[in-house]
Amino acid sequence: MLDFDFSIPTKVLFGVGRLDELKREKLPGKLALVVVSAGETMKRNGYLDRVLTALKHQGIEYLIFDKIRPNPSKAHVMEAAQFARDNFCEFVIGVGGASTIDAAKAIALMARNPGDLWDYIVTGSGKGKPVKNAALPIVAVMTTAGTGTEADPWMVITDRDLQEKIGFGVPSTFPCLSVVDPELTLSVPPFLTAIQGFDAFFHAAEGFIAEIATPISEAFSLQVIRLIFKNLPKAVHDGSDIEARTNIALASLLSGMVQSTSSCTSEHSMEHAMTAFHPELPHGAGLLMISEAYFSFFAKYVPDRFIKMAHMMGETTDGLPEEEKPYTFVHALQKLKKECGVDQLKMSDYGIQADEMEKLARNAHKTMSNLFAMDRYTLSLKENIEIFKAAYR
Amino acid sequence: MLDFDFSIPTKVLFGVGRLDELKREKLPGKLALVVVSAGETMKRNGYLDRVLTALKHQGIEYLIFDKIRPNPSKAHVMEAAQFARDNFCEFVIGVGGASTIDAAKAIALMARNPGDLWDYIVTGSGKGKPVKNAALPIVAVMTTAGTGTEADPWMVITDRDLQEKIGFGVPSTFPCLSVVDPELTLSVPPFLTAIQGFDAFFHAAEGFIAEIATPISEAFSLQVIRLIFKNLPKAVHDGSDIEARTNIALASLLSGMVQSTSSCTSEHSMEHAMTAFHPELPHGAGLLMISEAYFSFFAKYVPDRFIKMAHMMGETTDGLPEEEKPYTFVHALQKLKKECGVDQLKMSDYGIQADEMEKLARNAHKTMSNLFAMDRYTLSLKENIEIFKAAYR
Repeated sequence: MLDFDFSIPTKVLFGVGRLDELKREKLPGKLALVVVSAGETMKRNGYLDRVLTALKHQGIEYLIFDKIRPNPSKAHVMEAAQFARDNFCEFVIGVGGASTIDAAKAIALMARNPGDLWDYIVTGSGKGKPVKNAALPIVAVMTTAGTGTEADPWMVITDRDLQEKIGFGVPSTFPCLSVVDPELTLSVPPFLTAIQGFDAFFHAAEGFIAEIATPISEAFSLQVIRLIFKNLPKAVHDGSDIEARTNIALASLLSGMVQSTSSCTSEHSMEHAMTAFHPELPHGAGLLMISEAYFSFFAKYVPDRFIKMAHMMGETTDGLPEEEKPYTFVHALQKLKKECGVDQLKMSDYGIQADEMEKLARNAHKTMSNLFAMDRYTLSLKENIEIFKAAYR
Repeated sequence: MLDFDFSIPTKVLFGVGRLDELKREKLPGKLALVVVSAGETMKRNGYLDRVLTALKHQGIEYLIFDKIRPNPSKAHVMEAAQFARDNFCEFVIGVGGASTIDAAKAIALMARNPGDLWDYIVTGSGKGKPVKNAALPIVAVMTTAGTGTEADPWMVITDRDLQEKIGFGVPSTFPCLSVVDPELTLSVPPFLTAIQGFDAFFHAAEGFIAEIATPISEAFSLQVIRLIFKNLPKAVHDGSDIEARTNIALASLLSGMVQSTSSCTSEHSMEHAMTAFHPELPHGAGLLMISEAYFSFFAKYVPDRFIKMAHMMGETTDGLPEEEKPYTFVHALQKLKKECGVDQLKMSDYGIQADEMEKLARNAHKTMSNLFAMDRYTLSLKENIEIFKAAYR
């Protein structure tokens, strides 16, 4: 019988130009740690300045931590948390893409808790200690559209020494406020637009086939799949298409709500293993590389849900033999990849060797075992290796 | 361009047996005001005892206010708020149906704010003063399935002297915790099951055709319509059908989320006028009485949305002339009413006279003018009277 918790305590301001409202919105403190990426994008595009201006307008003081890189590292998180603690920051505001916001969440958590982030992580080498104190309040200003971190408590941080990339979150790591202003995504180049959009797509698709999906998460998932199917090619091919950008930003937001009401599945465990060993591989690209093999494997185990997803992507299954119907989703996925120019991504292009497949599968099982428990069919290590091998190019 | 705020800060525990978790769930204070209805149902069914036991288990003290009646009155709200203030209650826990929970919200608000509730109400004779202080934290334990008050900030309170029944809410009147345990609805008799279920249905349908609907509210709305179409007749005809009860409880919860992300429309303004003058008329029954006339009027103004709702109710519109298609929703609605045994409700059975139609329309426009602004076609007073007249039997 249906049984679930629902909790998405984040207030979201969604829409073109909404960043300007930050100067009027009640913020959770008088001294902020502003977290941005190490790159120049936030500064060059003026996004950081607009946030700082809003803070000044409210008489809020701030310090800046600007060392975050894609696949953010625990080392940077711990350094920033110490900095926040030493300076008595009262809240953390992340300005950027998912890596920055995830790092901001982890910094907010570790600014209020003793020890090391891996003391609290529940899988891999994490010690699984209970988190004692609520994180500092977190504000997220999104400049990309993809992960949905703006509407979920999850952070994905990598321990480079341990080669573990692990997702974690507690109720207090939901942002209290997220600004999703699609205008800020206009500057995202086509390739990143595509792989980030597909990240949202996979969050929705995995959340839809996950064991713990509920009618609430399903409603979100199907909307995401429909929105991305209809808008991602447009956003990739014409980055100035603000309507497409808005719909992709909405899909990203909803994909966060999927993750707050359902879960990712083992596809994410598998990808995390890839980027744990190859941090230069973007997360969305990793997902794209394994997606055909992954969803082809699961099609026979969750046929009804695959058919529903295919229908959201404009496919018809009428007249097909029953056993073929679920694979129409995989066909639709491949078509969408091609339309977005990301159907030819290869592991070998990112330095992944053919003989790494067992190592990756073992890492996935070890570090993100929890997501395997979300699958409706439990993958063996052998099957996991087979999927990696089928995906390898 | 799409632009919206999203905020549903309520944590929901949904599922059969979840009431028992109240004894472990973190509650927002050490002294509770427990609000229940004046009737015997909560006591006879043991629901009140189960809540009190949970409070005792957590060492939480409580006081009880048990005077709430359907269409709860401002007088009771103000009395209970004074009682809460005088006794330093730290939070309010409502145990019951929508009337009780709405009253609990109003009590929590007025326990922390000076003056009269109507000082803050923004329509009708309300003075529209800004609410100064956040309400006491509110916990909702639902024993009926219908309004969705468990997942929205809205309270509907009646000033009997002014004959004004007005909806109101502020961010702090979202429950911080709602327990939606479908088992508690097993004891709701068939007629109440039907009219409360239809209340959720209308919240979803109105929210779907409202001007401010968003893709998020739409996803919720369509789920509600589908769930109620499939399950309400079952729940009405076999009250022990726990699967149907669970699906209706879910529909109710989602209908609250519709109201937190979209809005009701003028149908609710019209019904509030009916119950303002005839407080013995149940809200859901009032909505049912005007629904055919109301939705028939609006069908031509929002045809695409009516067609989508009809499709969620199993109707096909293929082959019909374009202008007839939206009316398939009205047909589906009438069929569903009949299946639930509520197609013959008459205003005259509740003492409403034929010559009251203008008075009702004027009251609707005066006290709940805000919802008329949510319609995609702005009703004149004359048209409003016409709808009332068409509905009168």
